[in-house]
Amino acid sequence: MQPIYLDNNATTRTHPAVVAAMLPYFNERFANASSSHGPGMAAADGVRAARRQLQALLGAAHDHEIIYTSGGTEANSTALMSALEVQPGRNEIVTTAVEHPAILALVAHLEKTGRAKAHIIGVDADGRLDIDDFERALGPRTALVSVMWANNETGVLFPIADLARRARRAGALFHTDAVQAVGKHPVNLQGLDIDMLSLSGHKLHGPKGIGALYLRKGVPFRPLIRGGRQERGRRGGTENVPAIVGLGVAAALAANTSPDGLARVRLLRDRLEEGLLRRVERCVILGDAGDRLANTTNIVFDYVDGEALLLMLDRAGIAASSGSACAAGGMEPSHVLRAMRVPSQAVRGAVRFSLSTETTLAEVERVLAVLPDIVGRLRLNSPPWRDLAAVAELTQSALCP
Amino acid sequence: MQPIYLDNNATTRTHPAVVAAMLPYFNERFANASSSHGPGMAAADGVRAARRQLQALLGAAHDHEIIYTSGGTEANSTALMSALEVQPGRNEIVTTAVEHPAILALVAHLEKTGRAKAHIIGVDADGRLDIDDFERALGPRTALVSVMWANNETGVLFPIADLARRARRAGALFHTDAVQAVGKHPVNLQGLDIDMLSLSGHKLHGPKGIGALYLRKGVPFRPLIRGGRQERGRRGGTENVPAIVGLGVAAALAANTSPDGLARVRLLRDRLEEGLLRRVERCVILGDAGDRLANTTNIVFDYVDGEALLLMLDRAGIAASSGSACAAGGMEPSHVLRAMRVPSQAVRGAVRFSLSTETTLAEVERVLAVLPDIVGRLRLNSPPWRDLAAVAELTQSALCP
Repeated sequence: MQPIYLDNNATTRTHPAVVAAMLPYFNERFANASSSHGPGMAAADGVRAARRQLQALLGAAHDHEIIYTSGGTEANSTALMSALEVQPGRNEIVTTAVEHPAILALVAHLEKTGRAKAHIIGVDADGRLDIDDFERALGPRTALVSVMWANNETGVLFPIADLARRARRAGALFHTDAVQAVGKHPVNLQGLDIDMLSLSGHKLHGPKGIGALYLRKGVPFRPLIRGGRQERGRRGGTENVPAIVGLGVAAALAANTSPDGLARVRLLRDRLEEGLLRRVERCVILGDAGDRLANTTNIVFDYVDGEALLLMLDRAGIAASSGSACAAGGMEPSHVLRAMRVPSQAVRGAVRFSLSTETTLAEVERVLAVLPDIVGRLRLNSPPWRDLAAVAELTQSALCP
Repeated sequence: MQPIYLDNNATTRTHPAVVAAMLPYFNERFANASSSHGPGMAAADGVRAARRQLQALLGAAHDHEIIYTSGGTEANSTALMSALEVQPGRNEIVTTAVEHPAILALVAHLEKTGRAKAHIIGVDADGRLDIDDFERALGPRTALVSVMWANNETGVLFPIADLARRARRAGALFHTDAVQAVGKHPVNLQGLDIDMLSLSGHKLHGPKGIGALYLRKGVPFRPLIRGGRQERGRRGGTENVPAIVGLGVAAALAANTSPDGLARVRLLRDRLEEGLLRRVERCVILGDAGDRLANTTNIVFDYVDGEALLLMLDRAGIAASSGSACAAGGMEPSHVLRAMRVPSQAVRGAVRFSLSTETTLAEVERVLAVLPDIVGRLRLNSPPWRDLAAVAELTQSALCP
C-alpha cells in the first residue's frame, strides 16, 4: 500500500507535469544556458519562461526581480547578508522567535560574531506576533525586518502587509520567508512594501534544490555566491536549467489551481481536525484558528509521547512529523511551540499533519480510523493518564452509584 | 540532425542512467531526507549511497568528508570563506591568474573589501604555473592556497600533488577547484595533502545544481549557508535528493569507465587537432602539450574572428565555445589566454572544443570536413589575411617565374 503522506510542509511530491517538463532538459536541451550557441539558447529559453511563470505567481512587477537560488535556505541567507552589507550604518535585524532555522541559525551566528544585533519578537499562545514589541524594535539602526509569511509548524499566517509597511516607515528593508506560503496560500506582491521574498520549489510540488529570491527593483543588493555573470551577476553558478523549468511549471500549476484546490485542502484539513477532536479525548489544536494555512494542523495529544505516536503512525503507513525536518536528529523540543508557551509536557505530544492538493478524503478517513486507537494504546502506558482515568472512573461511580 | 556538441567543459549531457536513477526520487521516494518516518529514511538511503559513490571516485578516506553543495561555485565560495574564517591570524590567499571566475571574482571582492590579500600567480605561454613565484607567495599569513586541478579553457593540468605539499609545508590550507578534472581525469586523494576539493555534477554527466565540497577530516570549517542540521550542520537546506542520487550514479559511471573511455576521448581529440593542423594554415594549439585534459583543445585560427567562427559552426550544427560560458555576455577577451600572453589578435581567434565520452568519430570527421571551409571564407573578409595572401603569391611568382 502506498503510504499516506501528510508531511507536505517538509516536502511535497514533485508533480508529474513538473517532471515531464524537466526531462527534455536533462538529455536534449541540456546545454549551458549561458552558452551563446543554439543549444545554449534553447536552454536559456527555458530559464526565461520559468522566470515569467514565477513572476506571474508572485505578482512581481518585473521578471528580473526573480533570482534563482538553490532553495529557500540560500535565498534566506542571501537576503540577510545582503541587507547588512548594503547598509553599513545599520546592523540590527528584527525577526521572530518562530522563524525557520534557516533564519534563526544565521541570525544567532551573526550576533555571536558581532556582525548584527537581533531583536527576536515573541508570539502569544496562538502564535500571533506581538505587534507592540515589533514596533518598539524598529529604529534607525534596523537594517532588515525578516518575518515568515506562514509558520511551518503551525501554519499560522503573519500580517505581512502591515509588517512590511511598518518596516518601510522605519527605513528598514523588509524580507519575508514565504517558503511555506507560496503555493499554499495566495501571495501577491502588488501594493505590498516587500523588498525581498524567499521561496522554495519543493514546497509547492516543484523539484528540490531550486528556489528563488524575489528582489524588488531598485533594492540595493550584494550576492552571497559570486562567480560567473549568471542572474545578472547576482548569483554565480551554472543555471540549474531542468530544476528552473520545473519550478516554473510548479508555479504555473499553483497559480492555476489556487482557489479551488486550496478550498478543498482546507475542507480535508478541517475534517481531520474535527474528526480527531471528536474521537480523541484531551487533544488541542495549536495556532491561530482564524489565520492559518489551509493545509496545516498541529495537534497536541495530552499524555502521549509524540515521537512514539509518529513511529506507530509510520508503521501504519502514515507519514506525519513533529515539526521541522531540518531540525531532525536534534531531540530538542520545537522552538516554535516553546515560543507559544505550550507546556513542555504538551510539546512532547504535538504532531503536525500537513496536507496537499494531492491528499484524498480516503487518506483522511484512514487517519481518523487509525489514530484514536494508537493514542489509546500509548496512553495505557502512561502512568499519569492511568491515574487520571482511575480518578475519572471513581468520580463516575460516585456520581452514579 | 542532432547538433554536434563539443562544449563539454561548459556542461555535459546528463547520462540516461543518471536520469533513470533520479526519476523515482521525484515521485515515489520524494520525502525529505531529514524526516524520520519511513519515506524520509528511504530518501536518506539514496543520499547515503551517493556519498559512498563519490567517496569511491575521489579515493576519500571517509564518506562524511563529502559535503553536498548546489554546485562548483558554491563549493568554491564555501572553501574560500571557510579558510579565512577559521584562521583569524591568516588573511592571504594564493591562487592563479587562470582560475575560474568562481574563484577570481570572489577573491577580487574579498580584496576590495579588505577581507583578504591575494597573491595571483601567473603562468607561462603554455599555461604552466610559475613555481618560483608560487613558492615565494607562501608565508605565515597564507590562509589558503587555491589552484584548479585542470583549466577549463585550455585543459592544462596543474601539479596539484606538489602544490598541495608546498602549501602544507607553509602551514596553509590547500583547496583545489577540480570541477574540470573530476570525471575527465584520474583524481585520487590518497596520499595527497589536499584539504578541500570542489566538484560539480553537470561536468561529469550528472545533473546541474548539485556539486560537492570534499573536506578532509579534521580540517576546521565554517558553513557558508547556515540553517538546518543537514550535512552534519555544514550546509543548511533540504537535501536535493534526486540530484544527489544522480551525482552518485555519475560518479560511479566515471569511476567505472575511466581508463578506456578517457583513452578513446584522447584519441578523438588528437585526431581533431591533427586534422585541423593539417587542413588549416596558421592555426596553433594552446596550452601545455604534455599535461592537458584528454578532452580539451583550444585552437587559435590566425586572422579569424572567433565569435564569427563559432556562429558559423553553430549554423552548421556544431556547438563549441570561446571559453567559459560563465563569462558569456561579457565580450572581454579570455583572462586565461591573456595570462598566457597570447597576443590579443590571436585571443580573438581562439576556439575551444571540449569532447566527452559520448563524442563519436563521425562527429570529429564532420568538424574536420566543415571547419576548414568556414575558416577560409572568414579569412576572405579579413584585409590583413588578403594582404598576406597577396604577398605570398608575389613571393611565389618571384621565386618561380
